[in-house]
Amino acid sequence: MANEKMVKSITSMDEDFAKWYTDVVTKAELIDYSSVKGCMIIRPYGWAIWENIQRIMDGMFKETGHENVSMPMFIPESLLQREKDHVEGFAPEVAWVTHGGEEKLEERMCVRPTSETLFCDHYKNIIHSWRDLPKLYNQWCSVVRWEKTTRPFLRSREFHWQEGHTIHATAEEAKAETIQMLNVYAEFAEKYLAMPVIKGQKTEKERFAGAVNTYTIEAMMHDGKALQSGTSHFFGDGFAKAFGIQFTDKDNKLATPFQTSWGVSTRLIGAIIMTHGDDNGLVLPPAIAPVQAVIVPIASHKEGVLETANAMLGDIKKVCRAKLDDSDQTPGWKFAEYEMKGVPLRIEVGPRDIAEGNCVVVRRDNREKIVVPISELSTRIPELLAAVNEGLYQKALARRENMTFDAHNMEEMIDTAENKPGFIRAMWCGDRECEDALKEKAGVTSRCIPFEQETIDGKCVCCGKPAKHMLYWGKAY
Amino acid sequence: MANEKMVKSITSMDEDFAKWYTDVVTKAELIDYSSVKGCMIIRPYGWAIWENIQRIMDGMFKETGHENVSMPMFIPESLLQREKDHVEGFAPEVAWVTHGGEEKLEERMCVRPTSETLFCDHYKNIIHSWRDLPKLYNQWCSVVRWEKTTRPFLRSREFHWQEGHTIHATAEEAKAETIQMLNVYAEFAEKYLAMPVIKGQKTEKERFAGAVNTYTIEAMMHDGKALQSGTSHFFGDGFAKAFGIQFTDKDNKLATPFQTSWGVSTRLIGAIIMTHGDDNGLVLPPAIAPVQAVIVPIASHKEGVLETANAMLGDIKKVCRAKLDDSDQTPGWKFAEYEMKGVPLRIEVGPRDIAEGNCVVVRRDNREKIVVPISELSTRIPELLAAVNEGLYQKALARRENMTFDAHNMEEMIDTAENKPGFIRAMWCGDRECEDALKEKAGVTSRCIPFEQETIDGKCVCCGKPAKHMLYWGKAY
Repeated sequence: MANEKMVKSITSMDEDFAKWYTDVVTKAELIDYSSVKGCMIIRPYGWAIWENIQRIMDGMFKETGHENVSMPMFIPESLLQREKDHVEGFAPEVAWVTHGGEEKLEERMCVRPTSETLFCDHYKNIIHSWRDLPKLYNQWCSVVRWEKTTRPFLRSREFHWQEGHTIHATAEEAKAETIQMLNVYAEFAEKYLAMPVIKGQKTEKERFAGAVNTYTIEAMMHDGKALQSGTSHFFGDGFAKAFGIQFTDKDNKLATPFQTSWGVSTRLIGAIIMTHGDDNGLVLPPAIAPVQAVIVPIASHKEGVLETANAMLGDIKKVCRAKLDDSDQTPGWKFAEYEMKGVPLRIEVGPRDIAEGNCVVVRRDNREKIVVPISELSTRIPELLAAVNEGLYQKALARRENMTFDAHNMEEMIDTAENKPGFIRAMWCGDRECEDALKEKAGVTSRCIPFEQETIDGKCVCCGKPAKHMLYWGKAY
Repeated sequence: MANEKMVKSITSMDEDFAKWYTDVVTKAELIDYSSVKGCMIIRPYGWAIWENIQRIMDGMFKETGHENVSMPMFIPESLLQREKDHVEGFAPEVAWVTHGGEEKLEERMCVRPTSETLFCDHYKNIIHSWRDLPKLYNQWCSVVRWEKTTRPFLRSREFHWQEGHTIHATAEEAKAETIQMLNVYAEFAEKYLAMPVIKGQKTEKERFAGAVNTYTIEAMMHDGKALQSGTSHFFGDGFAKAFGIQFTDKDNKLATPFQTSWGVSTRLIGAIIMTHGDDNGLVLPPAIAPVQAVIVPIASHKEGVLETANAMLGDIKKVCRAKLDDSDQTPGWKFAEYEMKGVPLRIEVGPRDIAEGNCVVVRRDNREKIVVPISELSTRIPELLAAVNEGLYQKALARRENMTFDAHNMEEMIDTAENKPGFIRAMWCGDRECEDALKEKAGVTSRCIPFEQETIDGKCVCCGKPAKHMLYWGKAY
C-alpha cells in the first residue's frame, strides 16, 4: 500500500508567499477550514503546538506570581460601553448575541473581544483594602473579533489567546508589571520559539483602545513583513475610574488602583511558520514541536530492523517527544511527510547501520546528516535539539539584520519601502501627521519605538523637524 | 492587624442545604457572581481545582490514544439542523448570534451547546479511507445553554467541559469506545475525587439528543440527591448518515462510520462540594486540591518558629502542593480559613513542638490530630494524603449505602421518595408510561439501569407487569 497517499507538494515561497503559507498550514495538518466563515478548526498537530506554548508560558506566568481565572464569554452592552476609548475601539468588530433560546434578550451581549470590562466588574466586587492588592490574573480562552478578511492563525474571527489582567496599588507597580510581562514574552519568543524580537513602545496611534501605553514585541517574517507577536498595556487608572474601583490604603484613605493587561495568541503559530518554514514545509523549534524526533526504519521487513527501531524509541522517549513510524509507506514518503510537519530530527536506521551499530540523524533546519552510534543516541539527541534551536535562531537573526535598512529622508523611505522587503529604521518627530504621511506615501506603519534607541539622524524622516525617537517602520501582518 | 477579616461563617447543611452550598462556593472563593446573568466567574482557587481535574483526565485520555483539537465556538443554524433529534433537543436552549459588528448576518449562528455537528462537518472533509479511521478526538472548551434557573457549577448558561468525539469503522469499535470512556470517568471519580459512582445506561427518555444509547455515572450527594457526573453516548451511524460521511473500506466499498461522544464538566466541582463538604466548608480530595498541606506557625514571632516552618515547607514541597501561611492573622483565623477552603492537611508548628522535634498534622476529613516528628514529615505526608482520600471515599460509600432503599410497589415508592432522601432501587417493565407515572406520582426520575443488575422483584414497581430491569430512581440535580 506504499504511496497510497501521494507525497505532498507545496507552492514555493518565492513564487507566492501567501499561497506557500496556506499550503503549509493545511498540508502539515495544522488546520482545516470550517463551515463557520472566518473561523478555523485547529487539528491535533496544530493544537499540540499550542498546548506546548501554553504549558511553557503558563509556567512562566505562575513563576512570576500569576493565577489563572475564568471569566464569562459574554459582555452585556452596557458593560462594554463603560470605558469610552475602549468601546470605540472594539464595538465595531464584535459579534452580538440577541436571543437566548426563543426569547429576545432585554439587553444584547457581545462575545468578548477582550475582557478588560469583565475583569473591572469583578475587581469592583473583590477589592476593598490595600491587602487585596495586587491581583495578578490571567486567563486562557478564545475571543471573537468580526474581521472582514481572515487568514489561518494570523487573523481569524475567533482566536485563542491568553489575556493577563492585573491591578495594583500604585502606578509604578503597574508599570513595572507591564514591562516585566513584555520581557517574559520576549524571553519566550527568543528562547523557545527561536524567534528574535524587537522590544519597544507603540506610538499613540497604534495603542490598544483604552491604554496609556502599549508595549510590543515585533518579529520579522521570511518575506520581510513585521508580525506583532505580543503586547503589554499600561492603563493608568482610567478603567478603575470608569468602573468606580477604589480601595482603602494603608493610611485608611480611599485610593484608585492602576491596571495592566497583556496577551499573546495563536498568531504565534503563524509567526513560527513564517519565521522558520521553507519550501519543504514547516520547520518547528524543538521546544514546541509535538514530535521532536521521528525514527524512520529502512528496509523494515529485514530481520532486526523493527526490533532495533523499537528499542531506540524506548531509549529516546526518556529524553524527548519521539515517534516511530513503522507504517507501510515508503521511507521516501515518510521523509517528505515529516519534513512537511517540521519535525526537528529524523533518525534513519536500516540493516547496514545496525550492523555498524549506528544510525543517521538528519536535522530539519539545515539537512545536515550526522552518524550517531545507537548506544549514544539518548545523550546526543538533547544536544542536537539544542543545536537545531540555536541554528534556527541565528538564521532568523541574520535574516532580520540583512533585511533592516536605515532611511534618512522621504525619498529613501519610499524607495526602500518599495524595493527592499524588511524593516526600515528612521527618525520621527513624534507628530501624528508624519506617521499618517508615511503610511500614505510609503505604505509603512510604525512598528515600535525600540527600547534600544540609536540616533541615526537629527531630523524627522518625514518633516525634517528635530527628531524625538528612532522607530522601526514596516509593512505588517 | 489580626482578625481584620472576620472568621467566615456559613449556614449549616441541615438548616438549608442549598444555602450551605452557595455559602461554600462563595466563601471558599471558588466563584464570584458576574454582571452576565446565569454566568459565573471562576476564581483562582476554583479554577485551580478545574486545572487539576483537566491535567489528570487529559493524561487518561492521551493514554487511551485520544488527541485534542479545537473547533469553532459557533454553529451556523443550518448545520445545527442537519440531525433531526439533535436540533430538537438543543435548539430551544441556545444563544443566537445575529450581528457581526454593525451588520446583520446572512445566517444566524448559535454559540455551541455541544459540538457533534461541528465534528461531523470536519470528519466529512478528512475521512476518505479506512486508513483515516478511527479518529479519537477531544476538546476542552466552554459551551452555552440558555438555562432559566442557574446555580454555580451545577447549571450555568456557560460552563466548561471536555467533549470527546470519536468515529470508527464499525459499530462494535464505537460501542467499545463508549464503554471504555465511561470506565475512564468512573475510575477518575472514584480514584481522584474519592466519589463512588454507579455505572449504568440511561433509559430512552433520558438519552442525549441524537444518541442510540447513553451511559452515565451517577453519584449521591450529601442530601441524597443524584448528580449525573459524566455521560458517554453511542450514536450508531445516525450522525454520519445525516452528514453524508462515508469511507472506502478494505474491500474498496463505500461504508458509513459509527460515532461516539462523551463529556464531563465543571459540574464535577459541584459534586465534590456536595459529596465531601461539611459545616466548616469545603473538603477537597487530595488529588485535585490546589493546596494539599498548609503550614500554620504558632507564636510565629518566637525565635526559630518561622525558620523551622520555612524549612518544613521546602521539605514537603517535594512531595505535595504545600503552602506556608506566615501572614499576621491569628492561628485561629487561619484554621477556620483553611478548613473553609478544604485543604486536606493542616500542619501546626510552635515553639513547644519544635523543642520536641515534632509538629501536629490535622486531617480535614475527620479532624484527627497526629503528632509527627518534623524529620519524618515528608515521608508521612503522602501516606496521610492517601489516608484522607480513602477516608473520604469510605465515608461517601457508607452514606450512599445507608441512603439506598428498595421499593416493591408504588406505595413503597411514594413513601420512600417522600420520607427518605436517597436512591431507590426498583424494577421496571421498560415502558415509558411507567417512567412518566413514577415522575408524576413519586417525583423521581430514572437515574440509570445499572450494569450490576440484581433482581429484587419480578414485577414492575409501577404497573405490576413482568419486569425487565432493576433501576436506580431518585431526585436529581
